[in-house]
Amino acid sequence: MPQKYVIIGGDAAGMSAASKIRRLQPEAEMVVFEKGKYISFAACGIPYWIGGIIEDGRKLQVLTPKIAREKRDIDVRIHHEVIKINPPSKTVTVRDIKSNKIFETAYDKLLIATGARAALPAIPGIEQDGVYTLRTLGDGNQIQSYLQNNNVKHATVIGAGYIGVEMAENLRHLGLAVTMIGIYDQIVPTFDKDILEQVQEHIIEQGVDLKLNTQVTDIDSSNQGLVVKSSAGDVETDLVIVSTGVNPNTELARDVGIKLGSKGAILINELMQTSDPDIYAAGDCCEHHHLVLDESIWIPLATSANKGGRIAGENMAGGSVPFPGILGTAVIKIFDYNIAQTGLSEKQARATDKYSEIDTVMITGGSKAHYYPGSTPVTVKMVVDKSSKRLLGAQIIGKSDVAKRLDVLATAITAKMTVADVAMLDLTYAPPVAPVYDPIHVAANVANK
Amino acid sequence: MPQKYVIIGGDAAGMSAASKIRRLQPEAEMVVFEKGKYISFAACGIPYWIGGIIEDGRKLQVLTPKIAREKRDIDVRIHHEVIKINPPSKTVTVRDIKSNKIFETAYDKLLIATGARAALPAIPGIEQDGVYTLRTLGDGNQIQSYLQNNNVKHATVIGAGYIGVEMAENLRHLGLAVTMIGIYDQIVPTFDKDILEQVQEHIIEQGVDLKLNTQVTDIDSSNQGLVVKSSAGDVETDLVIVSTGVNPNTELARDVGIKLGSKGAILINELMQTSDPDIYAAGDCCEHHHLVLDESIWIPLATSANKGGRIAGENMAGGSVPFPGILGTAVIKIFDYNIAQTGLSEKQARATDKYSEIDTVMITGGSKAHYYPGSTPVTVKMVVDKSSKRLLGAQIIGKSDVAKRLDVLATAITAKMTVADVAMLDLTYAPPVAPVYDPIHVAANVANK
Repeated sequence: MPQKYVIIGGDAAGMSAASKIRRLQPEAEMVVFEKGKYISFAACGIPYWIGGIIEDGRKLQVLTPKIAREKRDIDVRIHHEVIKINPPSKTVTVRDIKSNKIFETAYDKLLIATGARAALPAIPGIEQDGVYTLRTLGDGNQIQSYLQNNNVKHATVIGAGYIGVEMAENLRHLGLAVTMIGIYDQIVPTFDKDILEQVQEHIIEQGVDLKLNTQVTDIDSSNQGLVVKSSAGDVETDLVIVSTGVNPNTELARDVGIKLGSKGAILINELMQTSDPDIYAAGDCCEHHHLVLDESIWIPLATSANKGGRIAGENMAGGSVPFPGILGTAVIKIFDYNIAQTGLSEKQARATDKYSEIDTVMITGGSKAHYYPGSTPVTVKMVVDKSSKRLLGAQIIGKSDVAKRLDVLATAITAKMTVADVAMLDLTYAPPVAPVYDPIHVAANVANK
Repeated sequence: MPQKYVIIGGDAAGMSAASKIRRLQPEAEMVVFEKGKYISFAACGIPYWIGGIIEDGRKLQVLTPKIAREKRDIDVRIHHEVIKINPPSKTVTVRDIKSNKIFETAYDKLLIATGARAALPAIPGIEQDGVYTLRTLGDGNQIQSYLQNNNVKHATVIGAGYIGVEMAENLRHLGLAVTMIGIYDQIVPTFDKDILEQVQEHIIEQGVDLKLNTQVTDIDSSNQGLVVKSSAGDVETDLVIVSTGVNPNTELARDVGIKLGSKGAILINELMQTSDPDIYAAGDCCEHHHLVLDESIWIPLATSANKGGRIAGENMAGGSVPFPGILGTAVIKIFDYNIAQTGLSEKQARATDKYSEIDTVMITGGSKAHYYPGSTPVTVKMVVDKSSKRLLGAQIIGKSDVAKRLDVLATAITAKMTVADVAMLDLTYAPPVAPVYDPIHVAANVANK
C-alpha cells in the first residue's frame, strides 16, 4: 500500500525531509503545510541582508513553492497552518489562512518540523513600532522597511548571543551607532568567558557600545524616538532589535501527548521518531543526541535541521538510518574575528557529572608559519577529560580560518580521540597556509602533558 | 647509569628529538652533530624568501647553535660530519670539517636524522654556474646572490612538483619570465590529474610557460646565457632551478647493514627504532607507517620529521610511545589557489591490492553560503573503498581555506570513518564562513549513494 506523507513546516528540516522522500519514492503522495509565506529560507543570512552585505533578499530563498513543485515535485501549501494532530485517526486538521477554511488530511507518516520562534522577554513596551525580533524573512522585510522610512541613527540590540552580535556588526556596517545589551557577564554565553576577552574588546573598538551584566527593564517612547531603560541607564535609540533566544514551536505535539524535553522541545529517538512511532520530528523544534554528553539536548541550529530532516525523510520512507548526533558546533563572524566552538565548553563540562575531572588548556599559535607575512594569532581552548585524556570540547578564536580548524577538532571529538591522538594528526603544512605545528597540535601537546 | 645520546643531523627531526630528550632528562649527556652551517631551518620557506615575500632569510632559522645551547641546553656541533657508525663499539666516527680532525664519540642511543638531498637528474650541463637545486639555506643564499649579480630576466624550473611550482610562483613574483618543465603529463604527480585542470590553467594565466610531458636533455650555455634543451624545444634562460625530487641520506645506515626500504630510506618500527634497537631514525631519511596503506612508505615531509623526531626523542629517553603513522597530508599554494591532499590518491588506491574496488567522486561546492558575497568554488575529490564505504583519500582545490577543510578529512581518515560518517559530521556553519552543507558533506553524500 503506498504511503501518504504529511510534513508540517516548510523550512530547512521539512523541505530536506520532503526532498529526500521524493527522491526515494517518486510516486508517493506527499504534502507540506507551511503557515507562513516563505519556505526554505536562509534565516542565518538575514542579518547580512539587513546590513546590506547581501543586496538582494530574494537570494535568501533557497526554494519557492513554485520551484519546489516544478523542480522537486513537492506539493507545498503556504499559508496553511496545521492546527491539530489527530493520532487516533492519523489525520491533521489544517486551516487555510487566506480562505479560513478548515479541513483534514490523512497521513501514514507525519513530520513535525515547526521550528522555533523568537523568545520575547517580559519587557514592558516591547510590542511597539520600532522594536523587532529577527527570525523570518517577514521580520527582515519589516526591519528593512523601518530603516528606509525612518531617520534611524542609533540602534539598540537587546541580547548578545549569535544573532545579537551579528546584528550589531551589520547595523554598524550600515553606519548606525549601536548599543548592544547583554544580560550575562559575557557575549555569546555558549562560549567560555576567558576565550572571549579579545573579541569583546574588538567589538568595542568597532564602535559598539557594549553593556554586559545589564537588565533591560522597559522600552519607552518619546517624541525623539525610543528609550531603552536598563540597569545600566537609559539608551535613547531609534530602533530596537530583540534577540534573546528562541523557543521551540511544539504546541501541536504537546497537545497530543508527544513527549517533550525540559525546554519544551520534542524528544526523538535515533531514527527521528517521536514517542508516537508514526510521527517524526526534525529541526529546531526537537532535541538531538549530544555525542559528548551522551544525552538528548536542545541546541537549535540550521546544521542539524538540514541533516536531521534528511534522515527523518529517509526513515519515514522506510529506511532505518540513525542520526548519529550533534556537538553543538557553531561559528560566528564578529567583525574581523571568527569564533567557533564544538563539544563541551568548560562550564558545560564542569556542570555535567558525566566527566568527573576536567582539564583545560588555552594556547595561542599562528595561522601560518611564523616567518610568513600575514600570520595572525589563533587561540585554541581545549576541554579534556582528565582521566582518559579524551577531548571533550574546543573553542577557537582568531582573524583567520578558525572555523575549519575547529572542524578538525569536531571530527576528532566525534571519533572519541584523545589529545595524544590529536597531537599526532597528519595535517596540512605549508608556510603560506599553516604552521608545521598547527595551533591545534600545540594545544593538544600541552593538554597531553 | 645515565645515558649518552648522539644525534646525527641538526634539522627538524634531530632538533625535535634533542629538545624532547633534554626536557625529559635535564642532566643527560647529549650531542648533536650537524655537517652544515645551519640547524633547524625552515626549508619550506626558502622559495618565499627567494621570491621576496619573506624579506629576511634569518627568519627561516628556527634555532641557531647559540640559541639551542643557551635556551635549550643542547650541545650542537655544526661543521661536524659523522662519517661512520660503529655499532659493535657503540660509537660514531666524526670529522670536524673546519679542522679536519677525526674523533670518536660513544653513544647509548643514537638517532639518525640525516634528512634527504636534492636528486640530480643525469642531464649534461647540470653542474654549471646558474643552475641550482633548492634544499638548504646555503642553496637559497647562492640563488639570491646569483639573482643580485646577474641580469636575470628569464628563469627555468625543471620539475613541477611541490618545490617546482612554489619556485615558479616566486620567480614570477620577482617579475621574471618563467618556464616550468615537467616530465609527467601533470604538475605535482602525487595528485590525481583530473582535479588539477583548473590549477594548471591558472598557472598558465599567471604567465608561466608550462611544458608538461617534457624531457630535459641538456643544459647548454651561450654568450647570451643558458639554453635548456628539451623534447619540447630549446629554452633560452638566465637561471635554472632543478627541483626533481630528493633522495634519502642513508649511506651511514646502509654501510652498517641497517635495513632500508625500496627507495633507500631507513625502515623503522613504531617506536622509531631501526633494525638496530639502539639506533633510531627520524625525518626525511626514513620511511613511515602509512595509515591507509597499512605499510611502510617513504614520503619525506616536514610534518612527520617534526612529530617523528619528538617521538624518537621520547623513546630514546626511555619512553614507549608509538608514532601512529602518516597520511602524506600536504598543501601547496599555487598563486591564488591552494591544493591539498591526504591519504590515497585515486592512482595510489588503484595501484595497491589492499582495496579491491575503488569509488571516486568529485564535486564542486562553495566556500561560504551561496548567497554570501565572496564565496569561491571548492572542488573536493574523494577516494572510497567500494565495499566498506571507508574514506581512503581526499584532494581539495580552491581559492579559499581548503587546507583546513582537507584536514577535517585527514582526521576522518585517521579515525577510519566511512563517507556516511563524514556526511553526518557536525561542522561549523555561518553564511560568511561556510555553507550549511560544506563541500566535504556534499562529496560524502554523493559518495554514499
